[in-house]
Amino acid sequence: MKKMINDPYAVVEELMDGYLKAYPKYIRQSEKHRRALIGKKRHPNRKVSILIGGGSGHEPGFLGYVGKGMADGVAVGNIFASPSPIPIQAVTQEIDRGEGVLYIYGNYAGDLMNFEMAAEMTEIEDEIPTRAVIGNDDLASSKDISDRRGIAGELLVYKVAGAAADFGYDLDKVTEIAQKANDQTRSMGIGLKPCYLPQTGKPSFDIEDNEMEIGLGHHGEPGIEKTTIRSSEETVDVLMKNILNEGLYDENDEVVVLINGLGATSQMELYIINNDVQNFLEKRNIKTYRSYVGNFITSMEMAGFSITLMKLDEELKKCIDHEVDCPNFAQVGEENANA
Amino acid sequence: MKKMINDPYAVVEELMDGYLKAYPKYIRQSEKHRRALIGKKRHPNRKVSILIGGGSGHEPGFLGYVGKGMADGVAVGNIFASPSPIPIQAVTQEIDRGEGVLYIYGNYAGDLMNFEMAAEMTEIEDEIPTRAVIGNDDLASSKDISDRRGIAGELLVYKVAGAAADFGYDLDKVTEIAQKANDQTRSMGIGLKPCYLPQTGKPSFDIEDNEMEIGLGHHGEPGIEKTTIRSSEETVDVLMKNILNEGLYDENDEVVVLINGLGATSQMELYIINNDVQNFLEKRNIKTYRSYVGNFITSMEMAGFSITLMKLDEELKKCIDHEVDCPNFAQVGEENANA
Repeated sequence: MKKMINDPYAVVEELMDGYLKAYPKYIRQSEKHRRALIGKKRHPNRKVSILIGGGSGHEPGFLGYVGKGMADGVAVGNIFASPSPIPIQAVTQEIDRGEGVLYIYGNYAGDLMNFEMAAEMTEIEDEIPTRAVIGNDDLASSKDISDRRGIAGELLVYKVAGAAADFGYDLDKVTEIAQKANDQTRSMGIGLKPCYLPQTGKPSFDIEDNEMEIGLGHHGEPGIEKTTIRSSEETVDVLMKNILNEGLYDENDEVVVLINGLGATSQMELYIINNDVQNFLEKRNIKTYRSYVGNFITSMEMAGFSITLMKLDEELKKCIDHEVDCPNFAQVGEENANA
Repeated sequence: MKKMINDPYAVVEELMDGYLKAYPKYIRQSEKHRRALIGKKRHPNRKVSILIGGGSGHEPGFLGYVGKGMADGVAVGNIFASPSPIPIQAVTQEIDRGEGVLYIYGNYAGDLMNFEMAAEMTEIEDEIPTRAVIGNDDLASSKDISDRRGIAGELLVYKVAGAAADFGYDLDKVTEIAQKANDQTRSMGIGLKPCYLPQTGKPSFDIEDNEMEIGLGHHGEPGIEKTTIRSSEETVDVLMKNILNEGLYDENDEVVVLINGLGATSQMELYIINNDVQNFLEKRNIKTYRSYVGNFITSMEMAGFSITLMKLDEELKKCIDHEVDCPNFAQVGEENANA
C-alpha cells in the first residue's frame, strides 16, 4: 500500500476537512453531525431537496456532487461503508424546505438499512416526507434487476434529479423523473488493479499482472470472469454487447455515455475507451447526445473503468442539458450556452 | 504495464479521436493537420487567441483546456514529446482573428524549439504576430528560474490568460497579465509510482515500494531526493517550506491553491493533502482565495502530486473568478454566481 495519508483511522475526517477547506463557498458541515454536509448554493426555483450519500473512498463521489443543480446535502460513511441514520436524518432536517427530500443511494444492504431507518425517523420525528431512488445500474452484479448494485450510473441520476428539482417540480414528480433516469440506465465495468483499504492495507481483490476481471464491483465484489487482459476495443466489445443485451437501447435511440474511471486509470485510457465505445454505437446507429469521460465515482486507487448508457427522452434531455455548479463537475447549461 | 489501450503506436490518435467524439460541441480537428485541434466556443469579446500545447500523456492536459474562457486551440505532440511546428502553425492560422496569438507552453527544450520555429513561420508566412509565456513553475527543477520546468501551474496561467482575452484586451496586455500569472506561481511535487511508456513498456522512473521522490518532474525527470515514504502532513511540510522559501508568499497574501494529482493518486488522498496544505497556510496567515483539487495535468498513470500557489492581486482575482466552459474544467463565473 502506497498512499499519501496520515492516520489510517482518520482518512474520512481528513478528506472531508480537505474538501470543506477547498470549497467553502459550496459546502459546510452541519452543526448537528460531523458526517452531515450541507450545500450552500441552491437554484431559486428548487422546492424539493436532494440527499445523496454512501461510503467514502469514492471521491469525488459523493460529497463532490453537492452543489447547484445537483444534491443539497450528503451523508458521509466510513470507507466503503454506509453512513448511519443519524447523519442522514441531520442532513434531511437541514435541507428540507417543507417540500420533502428525495434520497438517492446505491443498492447495497447497509445503505438500504440505514437510509430506510433515517426515512422512518424523519417521517415520524420531523414530519418530513421522503422518497428514495435506489441506484442499480450494474448489470454484471445480478440477473435479477432488483438485486443489482449501483455504480457510476448514479451520477446521471443525481444530474437528472437535480435538474427536475431546479425546474420547481414537487416531490412525486422529481422522484418519478429520477426513477425513470435510473430505469433507463445500465452500466458494466472491469477491474485491473485493486485498491488498498487504509486501515488493513489489504487489497480489495486479487488479480494477476496479466489479468482483468469483467463485471467487478466498486468495492471489489467478484465479477463474472477473470481473463487475460484484452485490448480496449475487445473489452469494450464485451461490455457493450452485455449492455445492449438488456434490450433497452435500439437503433436511433439517443443516449448519454458515461465512461467512469475507478481512480488509477489514466484519462488517456478513458478517451481511448470512449473512442471504442463511440465506434461501437455508431455502427449500430445509436446516437450519443452527451458524453462524460472522467474519474467521477472512484474506488480510491483502483484501476479499471465502467461504461454507462442512459436512454433519453425529451424530458431527460432537458434535465441533462441543465446547468450544474459543483467544484469538479460543472456544466454551463444549454439555457445559457449563448449568453 | 497494465493499460487499457489498443495499438501502442496509435495511442495519441485514438485518445484524440475519443476526446473529439466525446465533446464535439467544444472542439474539432483542423483540416490542415490532424494534430491541430480547434475550439468551437469563444467569448464574443475575445480578440486575442490563445494556443496551448505540448506532449501527450498529460490528459486532460492539454486538449481538455480548449474551451470558452481558456484556450482557442491546441497542438498535440506524441507521448511526452513536443508537437512539431506544422500543427502549431496550423492552429495559429485557424484561431487568429487578426489580433494575434499568445502561445502558452512549458519550459522544455523540444517545446521551446518547436514553438519558436512556429512563431517565426507564422510571423513571416502568415503575418500573424505571436507572443509566448513559458511555464516554469517547478521550483525543484533548478535554482535558476529561467531553467525551471513547467508543471501544473500552467493550468492557472491558461485560466488567467483566457480571462484576460475574454475581457477584450490586446495581445500585449493579455501577454503581460499571463506573464504576471506565471511569475507569481510556484509548484513542487513528489512521485510515488512511475507510469509506463506505451511503446516500450518502460517505467518513467525507478522507485522502491517504500520510497517517494521529492521534486520529481512530470516525465520522470529526477527530483531532489529519494526518501522513505512519509505522511501527507510531513510531505506537505517539506514542499510548502520550499515553496515559501521562494520569498513570494507573505502573511496576508491571497493565493490560489492547486493540488494536482499525477493520474493514479486518488482524489481521497488529494483532499487529505489539501487539508494539510490549508492548515499550513492558515498558521502563516496566508489566505486561500480559491482552490482547485484534482487530476488536471497528469503523467498517465503516475502516482504522486504537486502543490501550486499563485499569488493574487486584484487583476488576477478578476481573471480567476471568470467563467470557464471546458468539458472537465468548468466554472460558473462570479459575474453570474447569482444568476
